[in-house]
Amino acid sequence: MNEEKRTENIRQINEVLAGFEVAMLTTLQARDGSLHSRPMMYQNQPFDGSLWFFSKFSSAKVDEIRGGSQVNLSFASAEKQRYVSISGSAYVIRERMRMEALWDEKYRTWFPNGLDEPDLVLLRVDVVEAEVWDAKRKASGLSIRLA
Amino acid sequence: MNEEKRTENIRQINEVLAGFEVAMLTTLQARDGSLHSRPMMYQNQPFDGSLWFFSKFSSAKVDEIRGGSQVNLSFASAEKQRYVSISGSAYVIRERMRMEALWDEKYRTWFPNGLDEPDLVLLRVDVVEAEVWDAKRKASGLSIRLA
Repeated sequence: MNEEKRTENIRQINEVLAGFEVAMLTTLQARDGSLHSRPMMYQNQPFDGSLWFFSKFSSAKVDEIRGGSQVNLSFASAEKQRYVSISGSAYVIRERMRMEALWDEKYRTWFPNGLDEPDLVLLRVDVVEAEVWDAKRKASGLSIRLA
Repeated sequence: MNEEKRTENIRQINEVLAGFEVAMLTTLQARDGSLHSRPMMYQNQPFDGSLWFFSKFSSAKVDEIRGGSQVNLSFASAEKQRYVSISGSAYVIRERMRMEALWDEKYRTWFPNGLDEPDLVLLRVDVVEAEVWDAKRKASGLSIRLA
């Protein structure tokens, strides 16, 4: 994929994710093959192909994400009739400067100790493909690929 | 699990699913290990441990579901601050009487030929576990198991 096409696809994904505050992150539990999802505060900011989330290192989902595990992020708005599936690879990142740049006080509800929480980590999801269902765009399973 | 406990857990799951109209169904694509999700009209009716959805036999998700594949269903309402993850096993069912019992004219948008659509199938998801995040119930990852 050339750079121009990729930039355009990133712009389109940014557009369909606008307004969402929560994503459901689905991971595969290697032990028994079951699939689990949980709500994640979505960092609604311009992205370059990766999505970032705060998490705790001791959480089950981090246990299920080991160096590039494939995950799904789903975004659903019944009100807007807009649904987005993101397929990508997830990485656990401990990078203080990045955390400082991404931190917002609204996360304190989930992480009362803020950036001083020793268990705090970032999840980075490198987006491979977005699939979009959007009444406004008349999109039904429209695929937007980054890789 | 005894019958009484199971009945109580089914009642609880019914309660947390009330009001949802759409679920995001996540499946594992065996070919490359990627996870994909898509919106499914939720059959909001009393359930006995299984959830039912209309689908098309020729769709990619049906291709990914082969005799008891593990799937995830997520339900998200930002408005109610309620999020539910359902882990279970999915089966593709062709059963005319069941289709007639579950059919609702609101599905015609997706299946214009209604029950006469030769490609029409049902997906049955046998629920193993529900996990619930619900501001009203002060539930944060509450697990309700059926198996």
